[in-house]
Amino acid sequence: MKITGTFLDEITHDIPSSNWGVEEWARDFDAMKSVGIDTVILIRGGYSDHATFDSVSLKKYVPLRPVYTDLVDLFLSQAERCGMDFFMGTYDPFLVSHQRDYDVELKINLDFISEVVDRYGDRKAFKGWYLSREISTYDPSFTGLFEGLCSHMKTMKDIPVLVSPSIYGKKQFANPITPEEHEKHWRNIYSRFSGYVDIVAFQDGHVDFGDLPLYMQINTSLARENGIIPWSNVETFERGMPIDFLPIAWPHLRDKIETAARGGVEKLITFEFSHFLSPNSVYPSAHNLFKRYCEWFKSTEGLERGKVTPVRRAEKIFSQGIV
Amino acid sequence: MKITGTFLDEITHDIPSSNWGVEEWARDFDAMKSVGIDTVILIRGGYSDHATFDSVSLKKYVPLRPVYTDLVDLFLSQAERCGMDFFMGTYDPFLVSHQRDYDVELKINLDFISEVVDRYGDRKAFKGWYLSREISTYDPSFTGLFEGLCSHMKTMKDIPVLVSPSIYGKKQFANPITPEEHEKHWRNIYSRFSGYVDIVAFQDGHVDFGDLPLYMQINTSLARENGIIPWSNVETFERGMPIDFLPIAWPHLRDKIETAARGGVEKLITFEFSHFLSPNSVYPSAHNLFKRYCEWFKSTEGLERGKVTPVRRAEKIFSQGIV
Amino acid sequence: MKITGTFLDEITHDIPSSNWGVEEWARDFDAMKSVGIDTVILIRGGYSDHATFDSVSLKKYVPLRPVYTDLVDLFLSQAERCGMDFFMGTYDPFLVSHQRDYDVELKINLDFISEVVDRYGDRKAFKGWYLSREISTYDPSFTGLFEGLCSHMKTMKDIPVLVSPSIYGKKQFANPITPEEHEKHWRNIYSRFSGYVDIVAFQDGHVDFGDLPLYMQINTSLARENGIIPWSNVETFERGMPIDFLPIAWPHLRDKIETAARGGVEKLITFEFSHFLSPNSVYPSAHNLFKRYCEWFKSTEGLERGKVTPVRRAEKIFSQGIV
Repeated sequence: MKITGTFLDEITHDIPSSNWGVEEWARDFDAMKSVGIDTVILIRGGYSDHATFDSVSLKKYVPLRPVYTDLVDLFLSQAERCGMDFFMGTYDPFLVSHQRDYDVELKINLDFISEVVDRYGDRKAFKGWYLSREISTYDPSFTGLFEGLCSHMKTMKDIPVLVSPSIYGKKQFANPITPEEHEKHWRNIYSRFSGYVDIVAFQDGHVDFGDLPLYMQINTSLARENGIIPWSNVETFERGMPIDFLPIAWPHLRDKIETAARGGVEKLITFEFSHFLSPNSVYPSAHNLFKRYCEWFKSTEGLERGKVTPVRRAEKIFSQGIV
Repeated sequence: MKITGTFLDEITHDIPSSNWGVEEWARDFDAMKSVGIDTVILIRGGYSDHATFDSVSLKKYVPLRPVYTDLVDLFLSQAERCGMDFFMGTYDPFLVSHQRDYDVELKINLDFISEVVDRYGDRKAFKGWYLSREISTYDPSFTGLFEGLCSHMKTMKDIPVLVSPSIYGKKQFANPITPEEHEKHWRNIYSRFSGYVDIVAFQDGHVDFGDLPLYMQINTSLARENGIIPWSNVETFERGMPIDFLPIAWPHLRDKIETAARGGVEKLITFEFSHFLSPNSVYPSAHNLFKRYCEWFKSTEGLERGKVTPVRRAEKIFSQGIV
Repeated sequence: MKITGTFLDEITHDIPSSNWGVEEWARDFDAMKSVGIDTVILIRGGYSDHATFDSVSLKKYVPLRPVYTDLVDLFLSQAERCGMDFFMGTYDPFLVSHQRDYDVELKINLDFISEVVDRYGDRKAFKGWYLSREISTYDPSFTGLFEGLCSHMKTMKDIPVLVSPSIYGKKQFANPITPEEHEKHWRNIYSRFSGYVDIVAFQDGHVDFGDLPLYMQINTSLARENGIIPWSNVETFERGMPIDFLPIAWPHLRDKIETAARGGVEKLITFEFSHFLSPNSVYPSAHNLFKRYCEWFKSTEGLERGKVTPVRRAEKIFSQGIV
């Protein structure tokens, strides 16, 4: 089981910019394709006073900073060139004054989603929505926001909706949740998600590696009970270090991939390829992580006939000295 | 409007060393020149128990660590080779025991400034003083330190004095200042600076991008009312991220440059080229930022006849594979 | 006096992984050898739920994560290839539930040490033990743990035991120790170490550079009074910066090396070559630090006849473009 989807993290909250232009992004989509990635997910359509395109709707509500590049068009074009599916993220009003007022957040996003469909609705690669907000425990009004957003998305363009929640776990929170509490919260959330959200890809970095199988078992069972498809977001960055958000150690990544494969999820995506797993990353340790990943990929190749092409292509990238 | 000045950040407070020797510095001065930088500003002459040259005067007051390279001579030589102006920074006694005793700080610096003029006063590139201390709100005794330092500098060598203050803004402080309070504080500071300080280049990273035009308007008006030249310090590092002090996203930098150009400042300098904007930086994302900056530079070229050379030179640097 | 030993920091507590495989490690051992490193020290045999080999003994006590590479065999093989001595680290139960229960920690390690000798006891490069726990002030029960571990190590394989303690200094602690208190604590610790611990290599990064000579004098005197060999752990990373644990500024490193040489220690080791001083490091500033170190190395060469080979080899590495 390989990682076949990745987030695209422009308009970032916490990851430093690579300052890539079109050429650099094209090269990275080539690298993604070389290891079998077929799905790209734009983490957000807009964030605070920044947007991924020059959005008329956002400007009605937010004093938007200038947008110099239409990132949605850029990513759709690359996805189309590489035969990938593109999931479009929503707007997150973080740090704007009406922050965390769910009514305002819904109102802005209804407009924003309509504008997205107006502008990009016919694009070939536009195959899914990504609801950018991350939920970890049950909150009726927060869950209500999800329902409102999903309803409108599906009305405007009826394609799958993906979310990527986090476990309220010990690697981030001082008062972490127990598996029992988690199950209780998510029984509520999933029942509310049913019919709205199509795919749930839990982030896998908030609990100890040893606790992951149990949480994954809870998550996949509850998802299937509610007709929702379970994926896993196999994070490729390390958590809990003095310098946070750097490429993960390869044994940790392999451990989490193999855990997810055993856990019965249907697809692996990652946050995210371009900074943490790419041969083009601004972090040199990501280049080595890519090499380790490709070696492992190749070692499992014999078991998956007909899927040999990706790694051959990755090797060619190395031998051509692009890396 | 381009960035034509940069700080040189050796004897650093918060930025990790690149560990460059003479050869690497020479290469970076070439890169600076290639994009039109004509002014370099040494951020400090000394800091705590470290100095930029083996200073006899500092040793009278501070248990100075060994100095292996005369950085002032190194930077003056490079500036002379490249036809740039060099601004010399003062001594900051941070973390030494008599820290923040302004009388002691003044006394040490009077001696230090005299020694600097004795050693380097005749150097061709030595064209300005940089008063290293950063002020953000009015404090009579702190402002008095500025007056004492400037008087002595101008007596020893009568060249322009530059300062680079910060706005007491929300990106650094929990209780940020309002624009009205800022104006009140700086009306006092500028009236005291008048006749002492020649140039004020505010750091542009402490407030929201959207608030920058207002603060810039206040700063430039007050400067001109008091006969002081307004520059802007267009910071090339990002603030407010989990990993602080990494190269800024190109859209943010372009936004700030264009805001400053509209704001009527007379020159743009940056903190600083070598870590955050250089094709030689130890941060790979800075190499990409340099590419984006040069692309933009070139796109505006047609509007500025006779200034085509810098980018051509930068392109040559890339094509020769120095980067 | 040169750095002739380095830690190997896999199964890391705080340094991000380089994601090196066998090939990259072999290349780095070549680089170590090129500058005269003859001793490598594995920082830990295991840590929390991770181990450096698939340890049967640890699994009895700890829910160990999968181990994909036998790092002990890898490092022993490289050390044997390069004619180096290898010191083996102990297990640190940090973050496991019975954390900081010294009886449990001793019990696990007795088993672990036995297993290590069973598996690797005959390996040619296995020349020392490294007791991974760091002590800074006297604590009878913590010191007791050291005695219990050393007794068993020497019974199983009678080779030197190395420890690398820290000074309870101002660069890490808000209530730092005075030199007098440090001497009192360490008079107690050294008397208990006598007969158990063979070599003490204090970390040199917790106090001001100017205070290092005094602490070093205390440490070497007390060591020799108790029949213990004093080395120094010349840290190659910077402390006290906003981004911690990045390669140190070369003047700081040179200052500390020359201080240690004057302080009368018998050998210099470092934490650690591969991230902070290596031409192969994932941090570009480490490449420059290696260049500066080699330049200095070469400049002192005339004084040390017959030792010219290492730097010549390092230069060859550069000229061959391996860097």
